[in-house]
Amino acid sequence: MSQKQLAIGTLIEAYGLHPAAWLAEEAEPGAPTEIEYFKNIAQICERGKFDFYFIADTPAARTQDVETWARSPMYMNQLEPITLLTALAGATSKIGLAATASTSFYEPYNLARLYASLDHISGGRAGWNIVTSANDYAARNFGADRLPPHAKRYAKAKEFYDVVTALWDTWEDDAFVYDKEEGYNFLPEKMHMVDHEGEFFKVNGALNIARSPQGYPVILEAGASETGKEFAAQTAEAVFGVATRIEDAIAFYKDLKGRMPAYGRNPDHLKVLAGATIVVGDSAEEAKARFDHWQSLIHPDVGLLRIKQDIETDLSDLPLDEPVPEDRIPAEANHHRAYFDEIAGMIRRGLTLREICQQYTRSKVTIFGSPEEIADMMQEWLDREACDGFMITFPVIPSTLEDFVEKVVPILQARGIFREDYTGSTLREHLGLPRPENRHVVASADGGKVVANG
Amino acid sequence: MSQKQLAIGTLIEAYGLHPAAWLAEEAEPGAPTEIEYFKNIAQICERGKFDFYFIADTPAARTQDVETWARSPMYMNQLEPITLLTALAGATSKIGLAATASTSFYEPYNLARLYASLDHISGGRAGWNIVTSANDYAARNFGADRLPPHAKRYAKAKEFYDVVTALWDTWEDDAFVYDKEEGYNFLPEKMHMVDHEGEFFKVNGALNIARSPQGYPVILEAGASETGKEFAAQTAEAVFGVATRIEDAIAFYKDLKGRMPAYGRNPDHLKVLAGATIVVGDSAEEAKARFDHWQSLIHPDVGLLRIKQDIETDLSDLPLDEPVPEDRIPAEANHHRAYFDEIAGMIRRGLTLREICQQYTRSKVTIFGSPEEIADMMQEWLDREACDGFMITFPVIPSTLEDFVEKVVPILQARGIFREDYTGSTLREHLGLPRPENRHVVASADGGKVVANG
Repeated sequence: MSQKQLAIGTLIEAYGLHPAAWLAEEAEPGAPTEIEYFKNIAQICERGKFDFYFIADTPAARTQDVETWARSPMYMNQLEPITLLTALAGATSKIGLAATASTSFYEPYNLARLYASLDHISGGRAGWNIVTSANDYAARNFGADRLPPHAKRYAKAKEFYDVVTALWDTWEDDAFVYDKEEGYNFLPEKMHMVDHEGEFFKVNGALNIARSPQGYPVILEAGASETGKEFAAQTAEAVFGVATRIEDAIAFYKDLKGRMPAYGRNPDHLKVLAGATIVVGDSAEEAKARFDHWQSLIHPDVGLLRIKQDIETDLSDLPLDEPVPEDRIPAEANHHRAYFDEIAGMIRRGLTLREICQQYTRSKVTIFGSPEEIADMMQEWLDREACDGFMITFPVIPSTLEDFVEKVVPILQARGIFREDYTGSTLREHLGLPRPENRHVVASADGGKVVANG
Repeated sequence: MSQKQLAIGTLIEAYGLHPAAWLAEEAEPGAPTEIEYFKNIAQICERGKFDFYFIADTPAARTQDVETWARSPMYMNQLEPITLLTALAGATSKIGLAATASTSFYEPYNLARLYASLDHISGGRAGWNIVTSANDYAARNFGADRLPPHAKRYAKAKEFYDVVTALWDTWEDDAFVYDKEEGYNFLPEKMHMVDHEGEFFKVNGALNIARSPQGYPVILEAGASETGKEFAAQTAEAVFGVATRIEDAIAFYKDLKGRMPAYGRNPDHLKVLAGATIVVGDSAEEAKARFDHWQSLIHPDVGLLRIKQDIETDLSDLPLDEPVPEDRIPAEANHHRAYFDEIAGMIRRGLTLREICQQYTRSKVTIFGSPEEIADMMQEWLDREACDGFMITFPVIPSTLEDFVEKVVPILQARGIFREDYTGSTLREHLGLPRPENRHVVASADGGKVVANG
């Protein structure tokens, strides 16, 4: 059996994912809306032979605590993801282009068109990260006061997925024949109407764009909750893992893939990508020192606000340069257990409030190391089936991205666990995913029963 | 006073706007989803120094009479307009990029983001053609059985416009200061929330993208009906005229501009673009002969279907090569009076059914002429204030487009009524339109009252 290959995606935000990234020396002021800046970043990723470039998204700007977010402005000002990816398609030729779009805020028909069009324009490089959204401040941009509960959001997401994939199957791959002699631009029998009426959506029509190069864009999901994992087992083709310890990652990997056969799916057709923040240096210490500098740029107000959100306790009345009294730790975590434990741990260790503000990482394990050390870690996770690859966030770009591409990628390539060059031209080919067959073709081969792909 | 200049936009469809364009010798089979094809077309338009490239849109494929539409497939298979324009932004540098988007089928927040992002990515070249949509088969893709009545659609369009422009004014132009020294990425006082609750939309939030180069994309409209004209007088910056006779165009021009002062608007801030299908030849006769060849390619089934739609009478039981009995003309026109008159006229003149199928032009005046004759017509319309410019449709591309660019544009330039080269870099600059001020800046200068731009 040939050596298993790493998949690598990267989540890109204008300055990088660090809360103080925009304050780094290298940060270019106008970057968030400067298309040439992003083209350069995408080209660096493509030089690194990454599987895909990824954009996270919430269709909203924060409307509370704006004074503080002005000091840590992530997602307050960004190009819209589908247009940004479309522009990047013209500046790259191989790398996959994926973005988040919420099933809570889009009409399925519009979303189906946009992603199908991106897939055509990019020659089969589109990926769609399905999210249900969790921010009420986003819901308020779309007529609602708040989002529906988790289970309802997922039920809607599943129905959304069903409608969108049905629309993508409107046309069989060989429907458009452009037969001038017979006078038929397409074969009417290869066009299939969608007639859907469900709890959330009613769609009766046909998509007005030919089936795209990949059939469907690659479907990405996060899938951490129980509902999320079932949805992913049923529909996802790449999943972002959140485990920070290898043992947890191995368990997640096994758990998720183990759920797939129940849906008639081959576990190889879903790639688990471990989330990792990576800083490469000459040594782990040197890398850590660079990171500590960025941490020191986090304004205390930003730190306090993040803590307040994550443990629901306002510590802003306390002096910054003294330890936090232990009785200020809330009795229990309402939201993220891991966030809570990290903050509570720092309080118990007697760190000052300022130190906590600057050292709190939201449980993101940032991996510091020399190129060899980073490569070792990645190889170990791959070999031990903790993941099929990585979804890397770089804290400050372009520098930490360039370091990885120039120093770590060649080692992975030399070890034979990462491509020397692209061998395919679609995101599906990069990830080793099958191209979904049109359900109507499948049905016709099966004797007429139309079933959803899965 | 300096010579008034022509504005020129062109409506592009993959093969051109003729119903049989895809059957022309030059038509490239895969064009509708081939981005390189469209890049070439946009570059030809930019060589012609056109103000803008325009895409019409209906978010739907036809679902009835598909067998016949397979012979005349316009809008059955096309790239989604906003992604297509974004891709073209990277292949051009000056030409404006405009597309239709319906206020009936989009969420205002999503649309505001997409167009703002396109405006950023293109460096200020975006235009939005506001339509309310009139096709029930599109409504069925979005949960409705049919569209609401005309007046209700326009009321929704106006509210949609109000919300979208308010979102575009979320950020003052100088809100993002990227002040690393003070630690402020943006100035919180230059961010303005939208809090809208109306008959159709409820939006409470802020747009997550900086105000775009043009402030707002240029607003285009059709505005033929009474309601449409009022809406255009209030909100449009370019309007597509439909008059086919110069006297009617002059009346429309005067009528529309005359309505603007009531809304506090300067009539120069709305450009009337006369719709014209143009075929340039060595002579009018030669151009007409080319067109007649394309007309001859219209399949009788397509002709019959167009007639059936337009006069609500099915003539398919009649022999193709005999005149149509006059008693088959319906008592009155339900839809387009002009369509009805054209068909009824041909029946009364004794044309055979086949001839009617092939000669019916849907009242589109196609202008045939030598380069000088075309230039004369355009100059006359400009001089007599029948229009500020033209919205040209080319029946078959690239040939009729190239002919115009190579043969007519130089004459217009030599006469001093069309630019030798672009002098600005935004669509507003090309059209001579002011950049809208942010309503909050205006309000602040006015002592605090926030009013909509108009």
